[in-house]
Amino acid sequence: MKLTVKVMDIAAQGVLLHITDAWTIGVLEGDRVRVLNEATSESVSAIVNITSSFLTQGSIGVYQKTNGRVGFKEGAIAEVRETERLASIDYIKKKMDGQHLSKEEMLAIVKDTVAENLSPVEMAAFVTASYIHGLDMDEVEHLTRSMVETGDRIQFATHPIVDKHSIGGVPGNKISLLVVPIIAASGLKIPKTSSRAITGAGGTADLMEVLAPVEFSSAEVKRMTEKVGGSIVWGGATNIAPADDRFIMVEYPFRIDATGQMLASVMAKKSAVGADLAVIDIPVGNGTKVATVQEGRRLASQFMELGERLNIHVECALTYGESLVGHSIGPNLEVYEALSVLEGARAPGSLIQKSLSLSGIVLEMAGKAARGQGYAMAEGILTSGKALEKLRQIIEIQGGKPDVRSPDILPGEHHFVVNAPLDGYVVGLNNRSLITIARAAGAPHDRGAGIIIHAKKGTKVKQGEPIMTIYAERSWRLQKAVEIGRQLMPVLVEGMLLGHISPVHWV
Amino acid sequence: MKLTVKVMDIAAQGVLLHITDAWTIGVLEGDRVRVLNEATSESVSAIVNITSSFLTQGSIGVYQKTNGRVGFKEGAIAEVRETERLASIDYIKKKMDGQHLSKEEMLAIVKDTVAENLSPVEMAAFVTASYIHGLDMDEVEHLTRSMVETGDRIQFATHPIVDKHSIGGVPGNKISLLVVPIIAASGLKIPKTSSRAITGAGGTADLMEVLAPVEFSSAEVKRMTEKVGGSIVWGGATNIAPADDRFIMVEYPFRIDATGQMLASVMAKKSAVGADLAVIDIPVGNGTKVATVQEGRRLASQFMELGERLNIHVECALTYGESLVGHSIGPNLEVYEALSVLEGARAPGSLIQKSLSLSGIVLEMAGKAARGQGYAMAEGILTSGKALEKLRQIIEIQGGKPDVRSPDILPGEHHFVVNAPLDGYVVGLNNRSLITIARAAGAPHDRGAGIIIHAKKGTKVKQGEPIMTIYAERSWRLQKAVEIGRQLMPVLVEGMLLGHISPVHWV
Repeated sequence: MKLTVKVMDIAAQGVLLHITDAWTIGVLEGDRVRVLNEATSESVSAIVNITSSFLTQGSIGVYQKTNGRVGFKEGAIAEVRETERLASIDYIKKKMDGQHLSKEEMLAIVKDTVAENLSPVEMAAFVTASYIHGLDMDEVEHLTRSMVETGDRIQFATHPIVDKHSIGGVPGNKISLLVVPIIAASGLKIPKTSSRAITGAGGTADLMEVLAPVEFSSAEVKRMTEKVGGSIVWGGATNIAPADDRFIMVEYPFRIDATGQMLASVMAKKSAVGADLAVIDIPVGNGTKVATVQEGRRLASQFMELGERLNIHVECALTYGESLVGHSIGPNLEVYEALSVLEGARAPGSLIQKSLSLSGIVLEMAGKAARGQGYAMAEGILTSGKALEKLRQIIEIQGGKPDVRSPDILPGEHHFVVNAPLDGYVVGLNNRSLITIARAAGAPHDRGAGIIIHAKKGTKVKQGEPIMTIYAERSWRLQKAVEIGRQLMPVLVEGMLLGHISPVHWV
Repeated sequence: MKLTVKVMDIAAQGVLLHITDAWTIGVLEGDRVRVLNEATSESVSAIVNITSSFLTQGSIGVYQKTNGRVGFKEGAIAEVRETERLASIDYIKKKMDGQHLSKEEMLAIVKDTVAENLSPVEMAAFVTASYIHGLDMDEVEHLTRSMVETGDRIQFATHPIVDKHSIGGVPGNKISLLVVPIIAASGLKIPKTSSRAITGAGGTADLMEVLAPVEFSSAEVKRMTEKVGGSIVWGGATNIAPADDRFIMVEYPFRIDATGQMLASVMAKKSAVGADLAVIDIPVGNGTKVATVQEGRRLASQFMELGERLNIHVECALTYGESLVGHSIGPNLEVYEALSVLEGARAPGSLIQKSLSLSGIVLEMAGKAARGQGYAMAEGILTSGKALEKLRQIIEIQGGKPDVRSPDILPGEHHFVVNAPLDGYVVGLNNRSLITIARAAGAPHDRGAGIIIHAKKGTKVKQGEPIMTIYAERSWRLQKAVEIGRQLMPVLVEGMLLGHISPVHWV
């Protein structure tokens, strides 16, 4: 039927129909219609929202993203029809019924995901069904290739291109700020796309943004990497494997990270940037995504098999994940810590060792160092100051201030110190609770918000000594974080008396 | 944070935040915030939509349904916070992981469904997980009781209260228009809540609406049923088991009807109207929801077990579902057919027999007829004209015209006749295709739209004899239905020559 267009400046996909018109067309809330602009012959499929009063009968509200694809002027006439049923819905149903999806079927689902033809309900059903039934390696390969094909791809003139990825689950994991410049300083090219925190206190992209802009097109990533050897950008801005962001939004409420989806998500990005080899960091331990070394080994072999199918040489590092990397959580605090190591600080050991280990593996894989010599080579690059120099080049090419120094990066002005309630040892440090407290303090949005842990697991402490400090940019945020800390008790101190476990003291 | 309210007249739940404010609060599209009206101390949980231009920073758009619960005036100040995580999300995750849900957990999910605290993504995950893992009988009982508890309940002063339900899947199933008046005429009380077509060509509520209004509160259903013994209303208007409509919206794209959800959906409505006994019609055969008699028996035993747990005496009728009931599909055509039987017509046999069988079972269950005598008693009520008289009372009390006669109910003025392409037998009649054609012709919205089948499966036809007629109220609808009919070829005629199967001829 023909309806008069009201352009609605809401940054979403979709159209708004009067309930009577929807009924006439034969669609319900959440159904799709095809909307045709007869003036331009452009048409688009859009999810229907229904109103009984915001519009009069005979008109259609077209949301911004949808109108971006069909280009109506206010008051134009739209031809609106019930759409054909999407084949991808039948494929999702197949997966719900436990059947195997072919390459073509997976591609159809991913295409309709990227085009936003699938509704949130349909996406959720696909993600849930994939989570419950799992994806076999053929399906994971189809999914990965489909995610690559439906986004931008970078083709570098020279090779090898190397990459690094951490599957996450451990807080304070700022190692990319060290690994990328070490690798790039060795002469290898590493175009690192990274994520912003969704449930964490700061993703690599949030951290890098303290130093320089991180939103670039894939063409800019290519140019910058060719020029200085490395870049650290936010993947969400690049249109590389754009399906991934939509899948993540659906997984987000349930904090699920189904193995098949994770494998595809990581490897699609490596494949799309043209990586020849990649090292995958798999943090292992309670509170991470991988509870045991056995599970970590299984996951590693899946990453390696998928890499082989995609012609990417993959090696994995199982790393200790039960305690944070370094001592800081939150953008500015983490960047301060990483910068000070690049500037020559000899601590924290966990951060330095992990960064050098992963860098070493890459250097060996790429043939820059002999097997067994990668760690030492990475250490040489770090201690010589070449890694710092390289990071400054990356900061500069991304548009930041290359002469930044660690003292320039300040914590939030409000802070609260938590002291040990008794003499003893720190026996527990809950990753998830620490992240929750850092987020309550304002991280990652408030860059100065976060936590410094003074006494990590196993440390001997005296009564009254500081265990952790919470920082915030706004005092009400600090108060809230302290309140939540009181409930969560993220640190446990045990005295000499066996069995006497005491939470830290919150004043 | 405090934001200035812009009341948005979109008939939906939710709020619209500027992207910067969303980031500050720490929420993403699809997250929830708690919105507090400090003037009234009312607060509500709402799903977040994000805009970067439709609102300025510092303001919040509040959609109609959400504002209905919190009562802002334009320009008021709202306190907006990230909400606590809903416990029901953790319970949904449990179900995704294949675990069993307790009564309390199921109730939390259903409560948050009814309050619209759960997003479509979360609802979809619950429905998908329940579909894949299934619900055991304890969970089905919890779900049913939760659906009853979260809606209106009718308590009648006198008993027994009886009910009837068809699980659907066969087109043209207008039997409630006969069963309800037959039962009510026997002196029993039958408050029949029914559905509108979602994927069909006309639900019982769509049919009844040809004769009288169908939207009533549960209190009105009680009053009407007490007065005349029966009513036929749209369940969606009553607030009886309101969770069901939300679950159905999520199942709709996938056309799934998971057994556990279906059992709960049907029996929650029976329980909420206070039914003491109910007969369930289970159509069996290709093209219905239940393919074999064995499956039908299993489903019947589940209905009976659930009934026992809810203290409702349930019996089931497995009925022939491979061919439509009667000859008509579409509101007016079906109502015409049902009315003419009440007025004394002796055909169609399939409609009369099915209606009398189901009525007979109810009469026997309620002790109105001796075992084996129910059918005859029902037949007596029908042929005596008492059932017609009772339907007229029901029409009158619901606000329709009680003196309506079948010739008053007219088919759409446009029609197209499909003739037999050769001498032979009708060997195939595809239920789903017939429904698709009837919907294309405009049913159920255009009440005169639909199909009359002149030759059902097994009928001998001569070349050129009419096989079916398609009716529509609008000529373009008729054209579309004919076009779709050409593609779907819903009727097959086989000649004497074995193996020669010919689709009917579409001019």
